[in-house]
Amino acid sequence: MSDNDTILISPNEMQERFSSILDKLGFKKEKANAIAKIFTDNSVDGIYTHGVNRFRAFVSYVKLGHVKPDALPLLRNKIGGMEQWDGQQGPGILNAIHATETAMELARHNGIGCVALANTNHWIRGGTYGWHAAKAGFVFIGITNTISVMPAWGAIDSKLGNNPFVMALPYNNEAIVLDMAMSQYSYGAMELFVYKNEKLAVPGGYNSKGEMTNDPAEILATRRALPIGYWKGAGMSLLLDILTTVLSGGLAGHEITKAGIETNISQLFIAIDISKLSNHSLIAKTINDIIEDYHNSTPADGSKKITYPGERVLQTRKKNLAGGIPVLKKVWNQIMEL
Amino acid sequence: MSDNDTILISPNEMQERFSSILDKLGFKKEKANAIAKIFTDNSVDGIYTHGVNRFRAFVSYVKLGHVKPDALPLLRNKIGGMEQWDGQQGPGILNAIHATETAMELARHNGIGCVALANTNHWIRGGTYGWHAAKAGFVFIGITNTISVMPAWGAIDSKLGNNPFVMALPYNNEAIVLDMAMSQYSYGAMELFVYKNEKLAVPGGYNSKGEMTNDPAEILATRRALPIGYWKGAGMSLLLDILTTVLSGGLAGHEITKAGIETNISQLFIAIDISKLSNHSLIAKTINDIIEDYHNSTPADGSKKITYPGERVLQTRKKNLAGGIPVLKKVWNQIMEL
Repeated sequence: MSDNDTILISPNEMQERFSSILDKLGFKKEKANAIAKIFTDNSVDGIYTHGVNRFRAFVSYVKLGHVKPDALPLLRNKIGGMEQWDGQQGPGILNAIHATETAMELARHNGIGCVALANTNHWIRGGTYGWHAAKAGFVFIGITNTISVMPAWGAIDSKLGNNPFVMALPYNNEAIVLDMAMSQYSYGAMELFVYKNEKLAVPGGYNSKGEMTNDPAEILATRRALPIGYWKGAGMSLLLDILTTVLSGGLAGHEITKAGIETNISQLFIAIDISKLSNHSLIAKTINDIIEDYHNSTPADGSKKITYPGERVLQTRKKNLAGGIPVLKKVWNQIMEL
Repeated sequence: MSDNDTILISPNEMQERFSSILDKLGFKKEKANAIAKIFTDNSVDGIYTHGVNRFRAFVSYVKLGHVKPDALPLLRNKIGGMEQWDGQQGPGILNAIHATETAMELARHNGIGCVALANTNHWIRGGTYGWHAAKAGFVFIGITNTISVMPAWGAIDSKLGNNPFVMALPYNNEAIVLDMAMSQYSYGAMELFVYKNEKLAVPGGYNSKGEMTNDPAEILATRRALPIGYWKGAGMSLLLDILTTVLSGGLAGHEITKAGIETNISQLFIAIDISKLSNHSLIAKTINDIIEDYHNSTPADGSKKITYPGERVLQTRKKNLAGGIPVLKKVWNQIMEL
């Protein structure tokens, strides 16, 4: 068996392994379990880059002191349905879950709730918070800024983050969850394409001649990744950075980038309680009808189904829950050594 | 002078002309002036497609009875900072300004305010409401659904709207305003490229062979326009439609499309009052620093400046206020006949 073969790990085994590693790093039992569960759930959902494949990087951030296991988010300011919190460099996942639940609680009393969070760490997978809020009956919008990885439109040096943007809402006892970065492809995704010796499906950046290319190796060399929609995604990335920074009172992308470590980032969480809406009893049917119409699209390739954001996650989740999570043997061996 | 030459019309003359036409259509003086001012302001800002070039279409919607001059928005439901309004098919511009100001007022008392608006008409230019809120000191997010004009990712028939998305915030006594549709190019923009015999700068859709193309005529023939970021913008368009529909209790894109007329659309307006934030006194400097870093990008083409969303509007505004608004002679002649 080569290191690049995959093995199947049961969700229980993965979660227990993560939890015991976090326990040794000084996380209290409850926190270790909560973080381990989310890294495992992300892997179950097939988002391996933000699950099992990223766990080791999270551990190294803890060891380097960028993630403080005991830090708790602190309320700095409250104005009705809007709150400003300081994440105090605590674990990004726990801070983000706390912010999501706080926004939901604000929305319960207030229709809409908004939590801006400064000085937090990477939330790992934005979709986590979308699924969490939507399955509890809330509309959710989440935004994070990041270190700069993408040039402004027309520029060659990276001044913009990929600043993931999440929108989610309840559907059919599950959720519709859009979780998208402002870059067309992440560098991690492009490295994987190089590793598999594949081209990108659409242009993902520029080559050294300043031409758009779908050769991931050329883009990794120039570091000129393309924003979604060219000038549009570049503009949206800038606005998302300003929004998270201004509302949280935390650091902007350029400040995080200058510090050289992706910590002390700024995030935003908005929740809306749809159970309070006048049309509440009709909402399930409204969404069903929209998805039914959408699914009735005529595919360009008759063998391919038109899916909504989050739809394929459900299939992967079912498969991995039943048969185990496929993990690169090399990755699991490294985790077993932590 | 040919019909395709442009003439310069002063903002005052344009606004008076628009106002007098609306007066004849039965709009009360104050409403006629408000609508005329926004169509003129959009033209001053250089957004001619959503200004002078669109005025005639607005008039025809009024004449056909889709826009009801006297209809006022009606509050249907209030939960703290969240309100649901019925636009009652009133003028889209007036409904949207009302919704923006209501969201601002909710935010003054509540930190964040959200207005969902059902059964309204086209807001013409989404940026109008972003500039309006941001110049008054608010962060603003606005969303509208539209008639279907764009296929889902992997599909050939149009089941998605271009569903414009607006984000704005105060900057330097003016504003940073992102106003973007989910399609890479509108059909209107592509028609203009055909008219000028120009290709698109980036692929805007598919040709009849199912290949991506930057030939606007080929895309106008297939009606397969590309979403921004391919699968990402398609997903975001779907979510924006569901969001506006569910929160307003109004019609979804597929229902508007079936009706065949772009009326009774659904919109969302979110405002956040930054004067209430704990970091309020630092916000101007925070945004200045972000924009300064962004402007320090190294351009690929040394002759081109890297601009933020809304930056070029300021230059056009200054020029058109001083020298008059350039209008196609043909367009102005048609307006003079209304």
